Amino acid sequence: MRFFSDNAAAAHPAVLDALRAANTVDTAYDGDSWSRRLDAAFSELFETDVRALWIATGTAANSLALAAMCPPWGGIICHREAHINVDECGAPSFFAHGAKLLTGEGDGAKLTPDMVEALCAAIRPDVHQTQPRALSITNATEYGLAYTPAEVAALGEVARRRGLGFHMDGARFANAVAHLGCSPADLTWKGGVDALSFGFVKNGGLSAEALIFFKPELADAVLPMRKRAGHLFSKGRFLAAQLLAMLEGGLWLDNARAANRGAALLAGAAGDRLVHPVEANEVFLRVTPEEAAKLRALGFDFYDWGVGEARLVVSWDQDEAAIRPLAEAIAAL
Amino acid sequence: MRFFSDNAAAAHPAVLDALRAANTVDTAYDGDSWSRRLDAAFSELFETDVRALWIATGTAANSLALAAMCPPWGGIICHREAHINVDECGAPSFFAHGAKLLTGEGDGAKLTPDMVEALCAAIRPDVHQTQPRALSITNATEYGLAYTPAEVAALGEVARRRGLGFHMDGARFANAVAHLGCSPADLTWKGGVDALSFGFVKNGGLSAEALIFFKPELADAVLPMRKRAGHLFSKGRFLAAQLLAMLEGGLWLDNARAANRGAALLAGAAGDRLVHPVEANEVFLRVTPEEAAKLRALGFDFYDWGVGEARLVVSWDQDEAAIRPLAEAIAAL
Amino acid sequence: MRFFSDNAAAAHPAVLDALRAANTVDTAYDGDSWSRRLDAAFSELFETDVRALWIATGTAANSLALAAMCPPWGGIICHREAHINVDECGAPSFFAHGAKLLTGEGDGAKLTPDMVEALCAAIRPDVHQTQPRALSITNATEYGLAYTPAEVAALGEVARRRGLGFHMDGARFANAVAHLGCSPADLTWKGGVDALSFGFVKNGGLSAEALIFFKPELADAVLPMRKRAGHLFSKGRFLAAQLLAMLEGGLWLDNARAANRGAALLAGAAGDRLVHPVEANEVFLRVTPEEAAKLRALGFDFYDWGVGEARLVVSWDQDEAAIRPLAEAIAAL
Amino acid sequence: MRFFSDNAAAAHPAVLDALRAANTVDTAYDGDSWSRRLDAAFSELFETDVRALWIATGTAANSLALAAMCPPWGGIICHREAHINVDECGAPSFFAHGAKLLTGEGDGAKLTPDMVEALCAAIRPDVHQTQPRALSITNATEYGLAYTPAEVAALGEVARRRGLGFHMDGARFANAVAHLGCSPADLTWKGGVDALSFGFVKNGGLSAEALIFFKPELADAVLPMRKRAGHLFSKGRFLAAQLLAMLEGGLWLDNARAANRGAALLAGAAGDRLVHPVEANEVFLRVTPEEAAKLRALGFDFYDWGVGEARLVVSWDQDEAAIRPLAEAIAAL
Repeated sequence: MRFFSDNAAAAHPAVLDALRAANTVDTAYDGDSWSRRLDAAFSELFETDVRALWIATGTAANSLALAAMCPPWGGIICHREAHINVDECGAPSFFAHGAKLLTGEGDGAKLTPDMVEALCAAIRPDVHQTQPRALSITNATEYGLAYTPAEVAALGEVARRRGLGFHMDGARFANAVAHLGCSPADLTWKGGVDALSFGFVKNGGLSAEALIFFKPELADAVLPMRKRAGHLFSKGRFLAAQLLAMLEGGLWLDNARAANRGAALLAGAAGDRLVHPVEANEVFLRVTPEEAAKLRALGFDFYDWGVGEARLVVSWDQDEAAIRPLAEAIAAL
Repeated sequence: MRFFSDNAAAAHPAVLDALRAANTVDTAYDGDSWSRRLDAAFSELFETDVRALWIATGTAANSLALAAMCPPWGGIICHREAHINVDECGAPSFFAHGAKLLTGEGDGAKLTPDMVEALCAAIRPDVHQTQPRALSITNATEYGLAYTPAEVAALGEVARRRGLGFHMDGARFANAVAHLGCSPADLTWKGGVDALSFGFVKNGGLSAEALIFFKPELADAVLPMRKRAGHLFSKGRFLAAQLLAMLEGGLWLDNARAANRGAALLAGAAGDRLVHPVEANEVFLRVTPEEAAKLRALGFDFYDWGVGEARLVVSWDQDEAAIRPLAEAIAAL
Repeated sequence: MRFFSDNAAAAHPAVLDALRAANTVDTAYDGDSWSRRLDAAFSELFETDVRALWIATGTAANSLALAAMCPPWGGIICHREAHINVDECGAPSFFAHGAKLLTGEGDGAKLTPDMVEALCAAIRPDVHQTQPRALSITNATEYGLAYTPAEVAALGEVARRRGLGFHMDGARFANAVAHLGCSPADLTWKGGVDALSFGFVKNGGLSAEALIFFKPELADAVLPMRKRAGHLFSKGRFLAAQLLAMLEGGLWLDNARAANRGAALLAGAAGDRLVHPVEANEVFLRVTPEEAAKLRALGFDFYDWGVGEARLVVSWDQDEAAIRPLAEAIAAL
Repeated sequence: MRFFSDNAAAAHPAVLDALRAANTVDTAYDGDSWSRRLDAAFSELFETDVRALWIATGTAANSLALAAMCPPWGGIICHREAHINVDECGAPSFFAHGAKLLTGEGDGAKLTPDMVEALCAAIRPDVHQTQPRALSITNATEYGLAYTPAEVAALGEVARRRGLGFHMDGARFANAVAHLGCSPADLTWKGGVDALSFGFVKNGGLSAEALIFFKPELADAVLPMRKRAGHLFSKGRFLAAQLLAMLEGGLWLDNARAANRGAALLAGAAGDRLVHPVEANEVFLRVTPEEAAKLRALGFDFYDWGVGEARLVVSWDQDEAAIRPLAEAIAAL
């Protein structure tokens, strides 16, 4: 049974149905009737006018958003363990033409306003040092922690004061919203977020993420960049259709709730083995190598996370029956 | 009835079926069982050992291949009307970090060995001028002409002599093979081609092209670039499955033949209105604005091509019944 | 006797004296008292408030100016034979992160408003094609022709209408001003020029050009780029001192007049051998290979320019006595 | 009296004399007779065949060397406080097209083999993480510490084992050699260094550093990059002449010794105020704000270094008489 990542799960049947429904001729690129519905659909969800672009991968979505905010000679503040810093092969610097990631620390891959402020304050405002121009946080973080609306707003206030664009990597945004019970608006533009990489692929999608802009001029800047990066699909309707299917009836939130529930079940079994509170669909456990081996011998797949820790990720399609055996095995360690 | 482009056509049902069949959990990225079959499947088709990568768009495939061949300070020889020069928003220069396109002329967007040789000879071999490092041709060309195996080999010989990597943009490679009746091998590595962007999306695919390397070291160089450009999909099996479905039973060739047949039907009706011989699925006609308007009034969609010409593109899913009314309307002009 | 280029001539003694005078400790980079005088000195020359930066080479000056005007996905309109297109190893695309040169034609490497307008009009305003964002002309041109104030203004009008930044490569700006007898203002900002690479090295300088911005926000954008390109010298006062020495007493104009006079002397001797009118310090002659050999046998060095032409360039330090022997040899051919 | 930096000192008179001696016409760029002597002159100094290029600034020299070693998607290991990381406005990532600096820690800005090994070992060898391709150390370091030949060799061994190019930023290389009393060879290629930015500007030069390649193929790769970055001067002889003047009679070493002697004098006066051993021409002192103010009131200029520290840098032209007053003032604190 696989708990190594949610990024390898199956797509939701509704997504595949949507592909079939979109399998007709239409205008190429993003001129089709599905793509043209995205702005309205996401504006409704976010309770404000947004621009919404389909982007095939989270790496591309993050990089395009950041490239729209940060000039080649600027810096992007992020956590040292942020996905953009450690798992994207330098993509943000590629898209933003050499822009530099300026990394900070914080428990569970969370940045605090004080940390961001300290990073900014340590930089001399001259041409010799890379000046910060953007701030990127991941919500939920790489360790499954959720920034609350108040925490986002506090970071947004630093960003505003320091003149930084504010980007949220929401590869697991749905899980954060599901955990917090807040609205998507509360967690984004109301807190000063300028652009959100809204992840769907880990949450039941097949090959489409949404890049949401709360400032329309950023979307305009991204359009030529998307083409230039080979990310403007000729049959874009197949990406748009996936996103619309995920929004339909709140499927995105249902899927995230299901994954979060599974993680909560594991967390309950883990007790004080937990490295971090479980606020999304990821569970980090303290386990000895022998304990890890025992779980694997029972057929559970997962990543070791450094020495003495394991990462378990629950996917949208794993119900209680699928999770319970692992919960019991953890409790029995 | 749409004849404006093959890039907006529906996907073949077998491709959608393949997506459904691949909708199970598997290793992420390109470690899954579909992706791992690509090298063998394309090696069989090309009758030699190749490396085959799925790439979501033709623009990305072209750019990645060229970036693997040409350093940032190098030049890429191509036709002035090549897709990489006029329709990719500078993507090759983005992926290859500023590498320059060095453009030549030739009827129907075809380059000749003499033209390539002349372009090379005109460049002083010093650090002030951009030195050519790669050659890219499109087969079939942007005007629907097919380079023959002998023509490819003659260009390959210039590339070898001049030390140029040799790339083929095969957005409509299938149509060229179908027209020529040769083997894929004849048209590529046997003529010195190092890398082929093998197009499937215009030919019944949904969102996957194949990037074929006849030199394995180029594939190795592309792997980090693909990730860094946000083109490494987490659920890569859905791209691989499309390609395998297109290869299965020669579907790619059947589709191309169907489209070519439709174009031949139009060509027959067009007579001396033809601007170029019809060797793939594109037909360029001389028409007055009034004639163009007349065709449109009958419900046929197509692009004007400069002044006094029209471009008609036939898709894989347009059968004789779909084509004949247009053929008759042309004949009746 | 060398007539191959003005870029290898000696520096004017006043420039060397200025280096010696600046050889004292002062603030590093551009905080010294020489560098801080540049804005005022060039503002006086140009009769308007300008920002003036020292830049060590013309290639860097051109590229920095263009990078400040054109985004990475934009296009820069220039003549096909412009120095930025054929003699800078792709520097503009390096500094501007892949921006593309869009080249036009015209006699003597001169662009006309109609040509610029036609280049713009031929580009579809969509994300697939590289949209023009800047216009660069060379004055005097690579063939020694001078754009008049009226010609500059006509191009400036197209630039304004099309939303293009307007850059002038003035490697031989002094020669153009000397020929035209106009003011520097007439030839630049009064005609809509936004940035000027004002050349001094070919005109008696040692290692300093001036980059003049008529829009201050462009200068602000260039400051981090200059540092990031390794062009912020720690002992910048030695560059500033050269520029100030060249401005002192109009030395820049005296030198250019001297070179132009020499070229005029050669032009007079050349008669109908002239390929282009002589409006600066370059003379292009029709000569047979035998004639060229005869001149070389007499000790004159110069470049062949294609087949049947020779390029002769007069430097600031070649007086009539130095020129006359060549003039007589040409007349005697 | 200024102790804020050696980068603002005057140039040595011999350097200015060399400029005057070079003020004659010669071949442009690096084809002149001064530039053509560089390989031999530096090969003699380094007791092996090297390729030596003049480069106007240390930032450009460092960046060009690193761009020749590291692909755009690779990583460059350096100290977190390395000049390339904190004082070059991202230049290495600009020249190397987005390559990433991977930073380590160590006292006095020194890296150890264990630290480099640990940085490498922490990186998963997959396409998601930036793979290290180069190692850069500064000798003497940014805190005036000298790596010994044995320390360099130990790092060189890690570089070799890990497949990293090995670059030394030698902005104060002369000071390190002067301190260690070893040969330039001992400190570079004998320890595995592939390229050295050999600084002269801080040490009595005016506008020329030397970029030394112990692997000729790296020099070949840099030639087009140097031009493309606007760093190929048309009157390159003026840069070459500076370097030759500095080598002449060991002037570079004499100057460094003089600066080191001054720093030693200050170190002797500073006693246990010293933050780091003084092994070059930089002295870092623990001083209270009041003490710093007292020194400044006496006319001494220097940088505060964080809180409670001061950086004093001695230049080549400051003799004992110039230094002693500061030494006495420090002793009297």
